[in-house]
Amino acid sequence: MLLTVIGTGLIGGSFALGARTRNLFQKFLGVEPNAENADTAVRLGIVDDVVDEVPPDSDAVLIAGPSDVVADWVVRLADHPGVIFDVGSVKAAILQSIHRQLGRIPLRFVPCHPIAGRELSGPGAADEDLFADRLVIQTPHADTEAAALDQVVYWWRNLGARTQVLDPQAHDEVYALTSHLPHLLAFTYLQRIEPAHLDHAGGGFRDFSRIGGSDARMWSAIFDLNKDALLQALSAFESDLAGLREAIAREDVAEVRRLIGAARARRGNRSDD
Amino acid sequence: MLLTVIGTGLIGGSFALGARTRNLFQKFLGVEPNAENADTAVRLGIVDDVVDEVPPDSDAVLIAGPSDVVADWVVRLADHPGVIFDVGSVKAAILQSIHRQLGRIPLRFVPCHPIAGRELSGPGAADEDLFADRLVIQTPHADTEAAALDQVVYWWRNLGARTQVLDPQAHDEVYALTSHLPHLLAFTYLQRIEPAHLDHAGGGFRDFSRIGGSDARMWSAIFDLNKDALLQALSAFESDLAGLREAIAREDVAEVRRLIGAARARRGNRSDD
Repeated sequence: MLLTVIGTGLIGGSFALGARTRNLFQKFLGVEPNAENADTAVRLGIVDDVVDEVPPDSDAVLIAGPSDVVADWVVRLADHPGVIFDVGSVKAAILQSIHRQLGRIPLRFVPCHPIAGRELSGPGAADEDLFADRLVIQTPHADTEAAALDQVVYWWRNLGARTQVLDPQAHDEVYALTSHLPHLLAFTYLQRIEPAHLDHAGGGFRDFSRIGGSDARMWSAIFDLNKDALLQALSAFESDLAGLREAIAREDVAEVRRLIGAARARRGNRSDD
Repeated sequence: MLLTVIGTGLIGGSFALGARTRNLFQKFLGVEPNAENADTAVRLGIVDDVVDEVPPDSDAVLIAGPSDVVADWVVRLADHPGVIFDVGSVKAAILQSIHRQLGRIPLRFVPCHPIAGRELSGPGAADEDLFADRLVIQTPHADTEAAALDQVVYWWRNLGARTQVLDPQAHDEVYALTSHLPHLLAFTYLQRIEPAHLDHAGGGFRDFSRIGGSDARMWSAIFDLNKDALLQALSAFESDLAGLREAIAREDVAEVRRLIGAARARRGNRSDD
């Protein structure tokens, strides 16, 4: 069994390391345009070798580049006989782009999204247990082969992940709110931060700052691909923000307190990790 | 040496426990209107006893209630001979309110703000090392007695804190941006979260959710007291948010990427804790 990983960074590298440890494949190849990352991936045993093209005898091909390169890779691999899967944070736009280019979606392409982001990146951050107890979503299209979906689910579960099948559009709407919007707000928030502020960073700043350090290449692609759902979530946020701003401006402390209490209730019984 | 603590919750309780361990005072009394918290504070050894009024022979009085009760307590204690200090998150508005009521600021009142918030609260969360390596700011007024300021700085440093003197107005502007605005954004963000979203909570959600669980009574008071600086910081944020929204809407991926990169640079060389 041969796995080819396109993009040997944090996610692709972690999948390959985990799959090697669990003996899911016997041979691992990488397609990695970044020469330094390619060297690191071979040195760390993430892949056995780096190649320029995906070999036709790959049993599986993991497209682990940024969300905006996934559709083009699937189009290039449209007639590849292996199981093709990706890890992009946006799903519906990728499927639409493939359909626009090919007039169909390849039957053995299984769109995936592991909820396992970190601020770290690159093969040096790869971890064979990155997906342990993490949720990995599959958003199959109408024609996805059941055997290909089952195979991909089997691999993710072997790496310790929980799996869930979602409709692509529903996925994009949920993650616009639970992931893309918080990142957008954190990036916006940091625009006004000056070096002098860093000495006065309490808990609030630290939380915003952490996700605000995420990769610009990756996140600009996500925002662009999931523009519609993101702008809709943002519009609701802006309206709520105006409501809270007006309550503060008119010194309606009871209403502000009510809204903060409502926020607290909505996070559920989460621990304060 | 007798310390009286008004409000035996997380911050007041932690100061008392730390001061007891380090032998800074020999006797500890608490003013605590909440009967359950009062019982817990005595049971945990935070205070030796609970009293209704601040005894005139207190060498120090720590006002550790929410920010909106500090000014009234300072007014009540205007002629108390002890060193009076507080832990409110807002400083200029408290001083203004005292001055409005008394026509002066008591000479032995030392306004303080420890940057040591947690989502936990109450005496049960008190920790003698809560202030270790944390910043505690003093914002003395023009007439603050140097000896009182020195005394308070000495106590905080004995508890392991770093101390810094700031102008009250400068303090409020900095913390409007580094603490109050992130909390406001997190409270707003959570308004649209439904139970179904909690299954899809990645890193972004978790960070927002953590500070979004903060106490409504405390934060509505902070927003009200620091209204001017907060609304100014919010106005800048809303303008930056509109800029990012428009770049996303017109699919200007390069500009979005530039803004995300700028955000990342502004957080400084912070570890990803």
